[in-house]
Amino acid sequence: MHTIDEYLGMVECRIKELRYPASPKGLYEPIKYTLDGGGKRLRPVLTLAVCEAMGADPANALNQAMGVEMFHNFTLLHDDVMDHADMRRGRPTVHRRWDERTAILSGDAMLTMASVLVGENCPTDKYRKVNELFSRTSMEVYEGQQYDMDFEERADVTVEEYMEMIRLKTSVLLGCACGMGAIMGDADETCALAMYAYGEKLGLAFQLQDDYLDTYGDPIIFGKEIGGDILNDKKTWLLITALSEDESGVLMREIKTPSEPSDKIDAVRGVYDRLNLPARCHELIDRYVREAIAELEKASLPPAARDFFVALAENSRTRTH
Amino acid sequence: MHTIDEYLGMVECRIKELRYPASPKGLYEPIKYTLDGGGKRLRPVLTLAVCEAMGADPANALNQAMGVEMFHNFTLLHDDVMDHADMRRGRPTVHRRWDERTAILSGDAMLTMASVLVGENCPTDKYRKVNELFSRTSMEVYEGQQYDMDFEERADVTVEEYMEMIRLKTSVLLGCACGMGAIMGDADETCALAMYAYGEKLGLAFQLQDDYLDTYGDPIIFGKEIGGDILNDKKTWLLITALSEDESGVLMREIKTPSEPSDKIDAVRGVYDRLNLPARCHELIDRYVREAIAELEKASLPPAARDFFVALAENSRTRTH
Repeated sequence: MHTIDEYLGMVECRIKELRYPASPKGLYEPIKYTLDGGGKRLRPVLTLAVCEAMGADPANALNQAMGVEMFHNFTLLHDDVMDHADMRRGRPTVHRRWDERTAILSGDAMLTMASVLVGENCPTDKYRKVNELFSRTSMEVYEGQQYDMDFEERADVTVEEYMEMIRLKTSVLLGCACGMGAIMGDADETCALAMYAYGEKLGLAFQLQDDYLDTYGDPIIFGKEIGGDILNDKKTWLLITALSEDESGVLMREIKTPSEPSDKIDAVRGVYDRLNLPARCHELIDRYVREAIAELEKASLPPAARDFFVALAENSRTRTH
Repeated sequence: MHTIDEYLGMVECRIKELRYPASPKGLYEPIKYTLDGGGKRLRPVLTLAVCEAMGADPANALNQAMGVEMFHNFTLLHDDVMDHADMRRGRPTVHRRWDERTAILSGDAMLTMASVLVGENCPTDKYRKVNELFSRTSMEVYEGQQYDMDFEERADVTVEEYMEMIRLKTSVLLGCACGMGAIMGDADETCALAMYAYGEKLGLAFQLQDDYLDTYGDPIIFGKEIGGDILNDKKTWLLITALSEDESGVLMREIKTPSEPSDKIDAVRGVYDRLNLPARCHELIDRYVREAIAELEKASLPPAARDFFVALAENSRTRTH
């Protein structure tokens, strides 16, 4: 197995190599801008690492890794339009830097380019499998995004509904990233399913930690302002759980007639603290990390590969950015 | 060969049969709304007819026909968001009836559903071919849309650039529709290429007649108000040609300081008439119709099939709606 940084290097190198047609500029420049914007590249790293864990050359799965990363960036681009977000990864979003219709059209092109990458140089015996996994996952991600938007209008979202939403919106794409690596690495069905499930569980832990960091992270290390979810009344695990347990009325008051931003953040965080949510959130994260690791056992991986994926899962709980 | 109406019946029947997941409603209802909105269904009819012209059962190409129609409707949905259009086919557009983010997300889902349909029940020996044709065409359509938007900001668009733009934005999808039918009907390479080229030429004739009808059509028969392109200074073949030939200054004046709508339409149409553009537009349409028919000869079709596609091409010149 290579290290995470080595896989990351392969991904960044391939991103630099991507060639776009010279025109129309208005279509291709925003795509390059988006893809060059950085990010953790967690999904393509998973694809390469899983492929190698199957005993294959990770380069075999490089196009599929890029396809998943392109898809992920497409969803961010369109989500930013839908959310009217101004900034992404420290830079103006595409619809701010260009305009909205450019963002919509370039996103559409990224979705098609993602599906092209997924099938590029893919042997015929795997071609239908990777395509079908990619399409099924895409539909699930849209469903997750729709539920996320629906939840904004609802006051009665349950924790179960929330977990299903983040499974769809976030986790299945990590599952898909692992599944692609397994298919390209010629995994047997049991192993491919186990690695998909590993990615899915990892995604749940990952998203819960993301929610946690948005409220409790260090803004310098986390790389963005803290408390955005609280200010937007975003239905996260923290808020949904607190809404169902808080009897002080503070939460509902802050939602209906919010205090000044920093006071609102303090007040809501005070409720979370009183309900012991930071510790309980981490218990839940631990559970998904354990479940992710349990999936690894079903995949009968070589020890080095097992260690790699265990470390990655444990990192999702301890990461601070 | 069946008649156009019979192919249309097969398409409408399959559209009615499409089943969508029950939830999330916000994702799937706008898709059903868009697809149920009617339209000429020219593209899926082409796919079925070409498949049968190859001596195969048109039902073999029904999923591919639906995929192309779904893609076409996806582009209309997103184009309407980009153009801030309020109405489509006599009904509010999706972003008016719901909202913009619903329109963006449902469109994304339609693009993925289109690619699923294109591959559905497709034999393995054809699966990669139809997928690649679909992706390549999709990218060309986005490029065409981008050029169309770029042209809005430019005063020096040439007729050649315009023809290339409508080839990308409109014609290649008709070519793709024919190509899908040819692949699914087991056409040989020469025949598949000829049918693709037929669709492409047909698309050029079709779009030019569309431009013509927007200025010279009968609003009752055409089904929408006449003169919209003129009022929006839309860079059509008529306007681009007139801009390069008109020495009266009327056009530039109407673009910079437009008269009242009906006066502007009369003034611009007056310039077109003086330059004999209606007749010259139809000469150009006739040329593409002849080129489309010439492609049919290369495809060595049975006489009934040849007659069907000749009639369809000739209709693109005489149609009034």
